[in-house]
Amino acid sequence: MSLLTVGTVAFDTIETSRGRAEMVVGGACTYISWSASYFTNDINLVSIVGEDFPTSELDLLKERGVKLDGLEVVKGGKSFFWEGKYHDDMNTRDTIATELNVLADFDPVLPESFKDSQYIMLGNLTPEIQKKVISQLNGKPKLVVMDTMNFWMDVAWDSLLETIKLVDVLTINDEEARQLSGEHSLVKAAAKIHELGPKYIVIKKGEHGALLFGEGKIFSAPALPLAEVFDPTGAGDTFAGGFIGYLAQQDDVNFENMKRAVIYGSAMASFCVEEFSIAKLKTLDQSQIDERLQKFIEISAISL
Amino acid sequence: MSLLTVGTVAFDTIETSRGRAEMVVGGACTYISWSASYFTNDINLVSIVGEDFPTSELDLLKERGVKLDGLEVVKGGKSFFWEGKYHDDMNTRDTIATELNVLADFDPVLPESFKDSQYIMLGNLTPEIQKKVISQLNGKPKLVVMDTMNFWMDVAWDSLLETIKLVDVLTINDEEARQLSGEHSLVKAAAKIHELGPKYIVIKKGEHGALLFGEGKIFSAPALPLAEVFDPTGAGDTFAGGFIGYLAQQDDVNFENMKRAVIYGSAMASFCVEEFSIAKLKTLDQSQIDERLQKFIEISAISL
Repeated sequence: MSLLTVGTVAFDTIETSRGRAEMVVGGACTYISWSASYFTNDINLVSIVGEDFPTSELDLLKERGVKLDGLEVVKGGKSFFWEGKYHDDMNTRDTIATELNVLADFDPVLPESFKDSQYIMLGNLTPEIQKKVISQLNGKPKLVVMDTMNFWMDVAWDSLLETIKLVDVLTINDEEARQLSGEHSLVKAAAKIHELGPKYIVIKKGEHGALLFGEGKIFSAPALPLAEVFDPTGAGDTFAGGFIGYLAQQDDVNFENMKRAVIYGSAMASFCVEEFSIAKLKTLDQSQIDERLQKFIEISAISL
Repeated sequence: MSLLTVGTVAFDTIETSRGRAEMVVGGACTYISWSASYFTNDINLVSIVGEDFPTSELDLLKERGVKLDGLEVVKGGKSFFWEGKYHDDMNTRDTIATELNVLADFDPVLPESFKDSQYIMLGNLTPEIQKKVISQLNGKPKLVVMDTMNFWMDVAWDSLLETIKLVDVLTINDEEARQLSGEHSLVKAAAKIHELGPKYIVIKKGEHGALLFGEGKIFSAPALPLAEVFDPTGAGDTFAGGFIGYLAQQDDVNFENMKRAVIYGSAMASFCVEEFSIAKLKTLDQSQIDERLQKFIEISAISL
């Protein structure tokens, strides 16, 4: 089933305790698309880049079934750039530089062929742009998933709430869930976020796994304890891509499939952090993904 | 099977966002014993109190099958006292007062009838005292579990390592596992701690559950997402009591039973935090525990 994703396609410079990567391919939409491409080859990408973005990278996405009709390439423009340095815990990071470049004027216009997409993944962007994408769709799609971050809670609160009202699933990390709801308990936070609109809430807890709330139920997904984390950049987006990719593949939205989608997303994210940028995501095959899935199942399996 | 536990029996004054409790019953050994008493009625308690400790509380423990022959009551002495105030996150706390009182001269002497105990729970105390208890046992017991904390890493490093060398299971929280091993990755931390002696390591992550490492395997146990946490004091000790209580009851140490023990311990801890002090632990029955267990199983159950 058709999957539409909107978000950044960009360059990152990243420093972690494991090394440094200069001007590598990044961006939410990039990670989402690569991750989802292991589940469906019917992906509609909506984003913006400058002329500096390598066409070879775009060709690779095309080969994975990603349609780029919604990718605006700005002549003479520069792509969005982010530079960050991670602390030794690999959980926190300092932003060294953010250059919006062509992203500053991003005003997505959906190609006609994209407007009937049924699974929508709104990568982290201004809530205004996320809403604009929803408003251009023909009718109501089967599932709209929204990722966001604390920054928008600080600078675009009203617009954020307007967009959240329109989506079926909100993916958010634990601290952001607390900030959005004003509740410390994640059970209470999820209840308040349900009231804002989303039927399902995925709370991402990084190395502690994820919680799924919906239909009055809770699912606690483990993280895979890893010996090495090379670069956490894009892990959340890779999670989102695996999550919605699996749901688009199954085309049957229910709590059990949501649970599986959380595990598939977690598995994809666990690959992402093993190398810089999208390097690992470019090399996977189905048997590796199946094997990783089994590890997730095994480490949390218990019977009385 | 006989269970021996050593640790504090004490008074606490506790302030949380939910209220304040003055001079209530506390202490690692108290929580461990109450929690374990739902699994076995053959518990040998080793501790020290002052004359101020209420005999009514000791009588309640006796009714639960806890033998107090190893409890030294110091005439005219005052029991160990701790006062703490939790931050709103219920994870971090400030110590307002610590009065060692009779604990300052605690030098445990095991009654003859205790020396053949087979399941040993060393509650958080100086590693020196924990070691002294081990050394008084007749032969090697079936399982020695040790709880400790970062404080001993700061002030009693050598003694801590000597004691760790003698135990089968170390229970420790994630930050302490990192401090003890010098490794940020919990997989690497567990590997280093294995080298120090313990065959099994339980890393407690509070609201994020627990990880069990042993026999080359990993088990990730969820925490139950709670709407309300009333008082986290004693949650780790209550976990330990349920953990070793279940293993003493089963009397068969293997990885599958260890996994179940982690879930039983987690379930007991989830009750503990619902009220101040040991109030909730005094009121449980088997059906409540079974029901809570099922919740833990349900929230992490998944099939592909």
